[in-house]
Amino acid sequence: MSPSVTLKEVAALAGVSYQTVSKVLNRKVQASKETEARIFQAAEELGYRPNQIARNMRLQRSYMIGYSWERTSPDQVNHILDQFLTSMVEEAQAASFHLLPFPFRQGEEHVEDYRELINSGRVDGFVLSSINYNDPRVSYLMERRFPFVGFGHSDPELDFCYVDVDGADGIHQAVEYLLDKGHRRIAAIAWPKDSRVGNERMAGYLEAMQAAHAPVQPQWIQRGQGDFEFGRIACHTLVDLETELRPTAIVCLNDTQAIGAMHALRERQLQAGKDIAIIGFDDAPMTQFLLPALSTIRQPIRLAGRKCIEILVTLIDGNLPEERHVLLKPKLIIRASA
Amino acid sequence: MSPSVTLKEVAALAGVSYQTVSKVLNRKVQASKETEARIFQAAEELGYRPNQIARNMRLQRSYMIGYSWERTSPDQVNHILDQFLTSMVEEAQAASFHLLPFPFRQGEEHVEDYRELINSGRVDGFVLSSINYNDPRVSYLMERRFPFVGFGHSDPELDFCYVDVDGADGIHQAVEYLLDKGHRRIAAIAWPKDSRVGNERMAGYLEAMQAAHAPVQPQWIQRGQGDFEFGRIACHTLVDLETELRPTAIVCLNDTQAIGAMHALRERQLQAGKDIAIIGFDDAPMTQFLLPALSTIRQPIRLAGRKCIEILVTLIDGNLPEERHVLLKPKLIIRASA
Repeated sequence: MSPSVTLKEVAALAGVSYQTVSKVLNRKVQASKETEARIFQAAEELGYRPNQIARNMRLQRSYMIGYSWERTSPDQVNHILDQFLTSMVEEAQAASFHLLPFPFRQGEEHVEDYRELINSGRVDGFVLSSINYNDPRVSYLMERRFPFVGFGHSDPELDFCYVDVDGADGIHQAVEYLLDKGHRRIAAIAWPKDSRVGNERMAGYLEAMQAAHAPVQPQWIQRGQGDFEFGRIACHTLVDLETELRPTAIVCLNDTQAIGAMHALRERQLQAGKDIAIIGFDDAPMTQFLLPALSTIRQPIRLAGRKCIEILVTLIDGNLPEERHVLLKPKLIIRASA
Repeated sequence: MSPSVTLKEVAALAGVSYQTVSKVLNRKVQASKETEARIFQAAEELGYRPNQIARNMRLQRSYMIGYSWERTSPDQVNHILDQFLTSMVEEAQAASFHLLPFPFRQGEEHVEDYRELINSGRVDGFVLSSINYNDPRVSYLMERRFPFVGFGHSDPELDFCYVDVDGADGIHQAVEYLLDKGHRRIAAIAWPKDSRVGNERMAGYLEAMQAAHAPVQPQWIQRGQGDFEFGRIACHTLVDLETELRPTAIVCLNDTQAIGAMHALRERQLQAGKDIAIIGFDDAPMTQFLLPALSTIRQPIRLAGRKCIEILVTLIDGNLPEERHVLLKPKLIIRASA
């Protein structure tokens, strides 16, 4: 990347006027999508430095950070939202920023929302949640070189700043604990294969089993929705396995599945924690009040919120953050169910 | 109120210059607290019309709505936050507004946050949650005539716009249902007497009992924190009453207390829904998965969020909302626990 690339060179390569390049890169006007794409591509090819863009933008800062979250289904609760929002709001305020929440939509429509917030100068950066593979928001913001931090990461070839909770480590801890307790036949109630977060957590299961030379039967991995009903059905399927295959412990990728699994055990006159050990993931506030209380994995959500804002503000200032990728360790909470 | 009051008259009465009055009322500068108080008092006394202020402010609108919520304790979950924020964010966007969340603090410190957001021109109005008696935010915003809507109301003599869920009606429905089922000895696990929301809900209990000529024993009203542990202890106290006083049904002012009460029953080898009926309040997403599933009261949160924004935007536009006080009916959800 050459530090001496000028807007004129970008304009020449993009085949548009200097004024258009200047206005688009400084977010003063909104050009057609095609023109913007040409300008960003030219800026990219010539190595027009993003901190020049950052420096220009600084002149008209909004001191706002865009954030959008996916709504949970009505029978579930987003138990981390309160903590995550509160810690971001507090950390942002300490840096003289405010959060700007906006509605979550799917796919390209949602990218339009990001585009409009940038072009209208409403925000200086974004925190992204619910990132999945090939997330169009990520490619759009990277191409546009607009400051953002992911709460969660994505395809390894996309190198952007993120803060994440190490889901593999969480499930690894759970499986290791069960192995230590003498369990060998450990099953997993998991999510569909297109779930990035689900695959990461499952990697922790497989690693821990392999490290202990505990063979994994294909029937032990039950994949489906992360809800109560699938947890219940999957647990029945696992209990129905012939005696020598029947698991003595089950890890679930979230607490809702674990609660479904505990119900299935009760329907079979089995006791969680006595007949079959159950471990969830999330430490939803109600899980401590279940009978038996649910063993689960707690994520450091407040810290994650603070780190997201800290890194984002550094990027908005046009500086390089000390840590571009922050992976936080979750904590295994042992209660009666395992 | 006279429509012809001028800024000059306000300035004369307040004993400050015309410029100061103009700048303060138009939020162009921040004067000392004492000066501002004098100006607002003078504007009030002379009947300087709030829609003049609104009209002036319209010139420099931020299109932002301030909102701040009280964090729940770590062992509980704010299960309405997601729904309430989402519906406000969506409704605001439809009216070209955005939400501006800011940290919740207690008492006068929190009023300072409101003051600063107004004086810096960051917001055009507020939605207030967790309103209690003598809330200093309410008196400050009323005195300053700054647009706001309460999600919840307060002392009856304070006449401001609000949207609320009719908690008395909710508990009334629950007690009526229990009376219909033949219960006469119905107890209530309630909150401390300084809780406005708690007192409202308890009014519904007393009304329903009186309407059915069912006498209320003082021992049946157990007041304490709205948490699991108090629900558990209060239920033990109620079960310990001598046989002819022992309640056959208990209404709780929230689900967490109800879950504590269900634990207490289990500790006594009693079954909720069979030996003693239990009804909660909130319909927290996990309560349907309890054994037995909890009967509870569901609040129309999405509608409440939409109504708050609708009324607030009307106020910001300097118009009178059609409904100044919206009281929404909650819904009794009957499951196995009652």
